[in-house]
Amino acid sequence: MNEFGLIARHFRPLAGPGGLDLLDDAALLAPPPGRELVLTVDAMVEGVHYLPDDPPDLVARKLLRVNLSDLAAKGAQPLGYLLTVSAPRGTGEDWFAAFAAGLAADQAAFGIALLGGDTTSTPGPFSLSLTAIGHVAPGRMIRRAGARPGDGVWVTGTIGDGALGLRAIRGELPDPDGALADRYRLPQPRLGVARADWVRAAMDVSDGLVQDLGHLCRAGGVGAAIEAGLVPLSPAACAAGLAWRETCLTGGDDYELLLAVAPENAARLPPGLTRIGTFVAGDEVRVVDEAGRRLTFERGGWSHF
Amino acid sequence: MNEFGLIARHFRPLAGPGGLDLLDDAALLAPPPGRELVLTVDAMVEGVHYLPDDPPDLVARKLLRVNLSDLAAKGAQPLGYLLTVSAPRGTGEDWFAAFAAGLAADQAAFGIALLGGDTTSTPGPFSLSLTAIGHVAPGRMIRRAGARPGDGVWVTGTIGDGALGLRAIRGELPDPDGALADRYRLPQPRLGVARADWVRAAMDVSDGLVQDLGHLCRAGGVGAAIEAGLVPLSPAACAAGLAWRETCLTGGDDYELLLAVAPENAARLPPGLTRIGTFVAGDEVRVVDEAGRRLTFERGGWSHF
Repeated sequence: MNEFGLIARHFRPLAGPGGLDLLDDAALLAPPPGRELVLTVDAMVEGVHYLPDDPPDLVARKLLRVNLSDLAAKGAQPLGYLLTVSAPRGTGEDWFAAFAAGLAADQAAFGIALLGGDTTSTPGPFSLSLTAIGHVAPGRMIRRAGARPGDGVWVTGTIGDGALGLRAIRGELPDPDGALADRYRLPQPRLGVARADWVRAAMDVSDGLVQDLGHLCRAGGVGAAIEAGLVPLSPAACAAGLAWRETCLTGGDDYELLLAVAPENAARLPPGLTRIGTFVAGDEVRVVDEAGRRLTFERGGWSHF
Repeated sequence: MNEFGLIARHFRPLAGPGGLDLLDDAALLAPPPGRELVLTVDAMVEGVHYLPDDPPDLVARKLLRVNLSDLAAKGAQPLGYLLTVSAPRGTGEDWFAAFAAGLAADQAAFGIALLGGDTTSTPGPFSLSLTAIGHVAPGRMIRRAGARPGDGVWVTGTIGDGALGLRAIRGELPDPDGALADRYRLPQPRLGVARADWVRAAMDVSDGLVQDLGHLCRAGGVGAAIEAGLVPLSPAACAAGLAWRETCLTGGDDYELLLAVAPENAARLPPGLTRIGTFVAGDEVRVVDEAGRRLTFERGGWSHF
């Protein structure tokens, strides 16, 4: 087993047209005529972004999906991706086979293909990165900035499952059917939901709802008032109970979308979205409970340092 | 110090127009009209691709330059890049400041700007990746495939300094003025040298001249015969003597270009290139010494696994 054989056996079959069978030093991309490109990159480190015994196919799919989630937030359509894999020496060929199988499954599911990459060894844990490229109509990329006072604060799906899933895997709360762990290991990128026709600003929730809402507010020069009781929870998160509410609101790993939608566009939203509050004048993110009492949090979300 | 403050202080000043001040989840790139994009990615891991006590500004510049070297091999003009930095917890702010200063210096030198990135922690060594984007006229990207029997085998600069530099840093050979160590730490991307007008095939020499020439031959369905005595050496590499010849020819870290040039185009080449042999029919890379004796090597170059 050497580097070049590994690439040929496991990654070459994933290459799209611009990937040139991974036989070259670079990919060639003829941008779709009349479209702008949207580029995003996320790194994932074993033991930080995923657990050492997470199955390699799910690690690969999570790596792709966290980037697709960023494209989804921008209203972009996936086009291709580049990948780096730094693997501990002695990593078995079976790891690469499973990792590539995960990518193949999600390439088919999301209509994206591999353009290029780099495979290296590392004396540390697995260290992965993925650069995703999407495209949008000119001027139609959705930004973080743009929310206005009076716009609704909307989210896709349910919030908190990823963070609870991590705690469940650690044995800190029950997860009888594994639904929470699944959500931690395999995010669902919400492609196609955010469109500039009905969304004024958006981002994906990766570091915690409260913190990420703060980012969206700062970018737009607005504040927000949300009601914890309106935040959509999955049945598994409901079952966890109120003691886990702060984790749901600040824990991260949701990969749901957070959207600013003008009231007149609310009726145009696709199904599966929930309004949890309102953007307001000011610069404060205010969270209240069902009784209207203000909730405060030790920290609003995740920071690496 | 938190993740967002770090990014604001050190990376935001590096952002080009499409980087949106790194305030968004993605970059927006309007491709230069009528051009094709060339995309490449390389990872660098502390202790594998550079030494733990290499200065952070040089590490940053090497990371950018190894990717620029790939763009140079394709005949592409640099446009922008995305970056991931996974840093050990406890990394000081001074590390980020020096790393960003290195990027700033080379952004100015090579006319490229930061489009986006991701900064994370890691329990392992520093793990870095950089995706570089360049552009070429349609159909003018130089490929690895394309060499024909009779074409000259040409290289830029001098070969072996990077590999000798690594050995010199380890104390295995003298390097009185540090010239070899400098070449290991700071490659010189040969942008503008390879153009489809006079080059039929090209790649950069990163894993060792003999091995990389093998890649170029396989891609083109040809063989090559080169003369070790024609391979250009720096004064420092000459001083090291014949005992280090195999290291020079197979050691890697050159980041020089290896080119296939038709005889009728040799006169059009810019200065600073050296012809070291000829592409031939077959599939063999044959290296001979000054007396015409065949040289064989235990391995032709570097493989991570």
